[in-house]
Amino acid sequence: MMKDIWVVKENGEQEKFSPRKVKRALRRSGLGVKTSQEMLKVLEPKLYNGITTKKIYQIVYRLVKERKPEVTHKYNLKRALQDLGPAGYHFEDFVAKLLDSRGYKTEVRQHIGGRCTSHEIDAVATKGKDKYMVECKFHNEPGTRCRIQSILYVYSRFLDLEKSVPRKFTKPWLITNTKFSTDVVTYAECMDLPLLGWHYPFKQSLEVLIDRTKCYPVTVIDMSRNSLKNLLKRRMVTVQDIPESPHRLSDFTGVSLGTAKKIVKKAEYAR
Amino acid sequence: MMKDIWVVKENGEQEKFSPRKVKRALRRSGLGVKTSQEMLKVLEPKLYNGITTKKIYQIVYRLVKERKPEVTHKYNLKRALQDLGPAGYHFEDFVAKLLDSRGYKTEVRQHIGGRCTSHEIDAVATKGKDKYMVECKFHNEPGTRCRIQSILYVYSRFLDLEKSVPRKFTKPWLITNTKFSTDVVTYAECMDLPLLGWHYPFKQSLEVLIDRTKCYPVTVIDMSRNSLKNLLKRRMVTVQDIPESPHRLSDFTGVSLGTAKKIVKKAEYAR
Repeated sequence: MMKDIWVVKENGEQEKFSPRKVKRALRRSGLGVKTSQEMLKVLEPKLYNGITTKKIYQIVYRLVKERKPEVTHKYNLKRALQDLGPAGYHFEDFVAKLLDSRGYKTEVRQHIGGRCTSHEIDAVATKGKDKYMVECKFHNEPGTRCRIQSILYVYSRFLDLEKSVPRKFTKPWLITNTKFSTDVVTYAECMDLPLLGWHYPFKQSLEVLIDRTKCYPVTVIDMSRNSLKNLLKRRMVTVQDIPESPHRLSDFTGVSLGTAKKIVKKAEYAR
Repeated sequence: MMKDIWVVKENGEQEKFSPRKVKRALRRSGLGVKTSQEMLKVLEPKLYNGITTKKIYQIVYRLVKERKPEVTHKYNLKRALQDLGPAGYHFEDFVAKLLDSRGYKTEVRQHIGGRCTSHEIDAVATKGKDKYMVECKFHNEPGTRCRIQSILYVYSRFLDLEKSVPRKFTKPWLITNTKFSTDVVTYAECMDLPLLGWHYPFKQSLEVLIDRTKCYPVTVIDMSRNSLKNLLKRRMVTVQDIPESPHRLSDFTGVSLGTAKKIVKKAEYAR
């Protein structure tokens, strides 16, 4: 039994180090009980009072990369989603592609007139008779929760569009890269409005859908800021968007052939 | 005719120096055409390319303070409202007092249950049969405009409260210390929702109501951060809240008698 270690969270708060949380993240990444336990054993002597959660993440990330490179894209998914920022439009493109892979037809950043004013809709997602007004709420800072104001303004926006004839959307749909605050969930469930975010809804959450469709953000792959910029510029926001041929990737994005080869190789695990 | 001078705005954008804007601000403060013209004459040789609007404000503020100390509280009102920050609750208290002085009965920061979730209402303002759900949107940064999301979430919040029986509010009311963006105004006018902010509504705007009721924020008075803190801690958010006796002010807030005398003297102009 180790003695208590105090950890500084991203929001500045302190909490006791929880081996359970690290194990859960590792297990979620598809690592077995034994491997997770072993990694925790390597981590524990490196801990000290006042260590940040970010630092812990980095240590564990290195361990995963060394010992189980084939699951790093699962372990770093949450950070990878954040790395689609700082602006929100790469996340919008990513959400559209995720929904595409779930059988929706999507169009991003559509200007649509409502009864009182015109709105920019992050994504319009159609499937059968359903047409969703998708609002993508992107958060840069880890630990941020999607707040009640977001679901409230999304609903008013939907109402304004609904009041104009012909009826434009079946429902609004709020999608975020982080967790929702409790009152967002309470309100949305009461109003029967769909939500998609980290750990929500149960068994159908953002990370589950990403794992299931293998629609990983391109940011799960460890690469230079510049290579990433070249990919994103081409709307290559998911790993699946990356050409399997290094030559084509290099031609498309201007990254060197050497870099392209490395990217293609790392991408294999996440396809 | 002076040559073009480029000014850097608070949001980083550049624009040509506009003597008209400075004159308008001075005229709004109650200065005559001649005095305004004279001050502009003193200002112009001090301008240079790349000067910030903040710097211009400081130069003019000093001129006003030297030559017409009795109107400084009108000239620096916009900044004074911002100085109620960084958090929003002093602005909430200020808005409540402003509404009080207009004949409303107000209560700040009320938790009220709606149909789906419970809401913290910044201020409840009652007058006759009308009961307003007041949302105070405080902006720290000069030049920020109150955005469409705010009025949209305010309306949904109102709807959620309206759906719970008995009917709780007549209308929502969005009040900000800055300007509204055009689409907020379009939406609010179309939905018949009241707004109050800088320069809006015409002839009944925030600054007009403040001038008319003489309900100036305490921050119009030039004083140390510490004195201000002591006043605000006591909910002395308006000039009218300041006791006219320096002894009482000193007893109440812990500022020295000397400081109290200075504050009381400066406050006289704004009563």
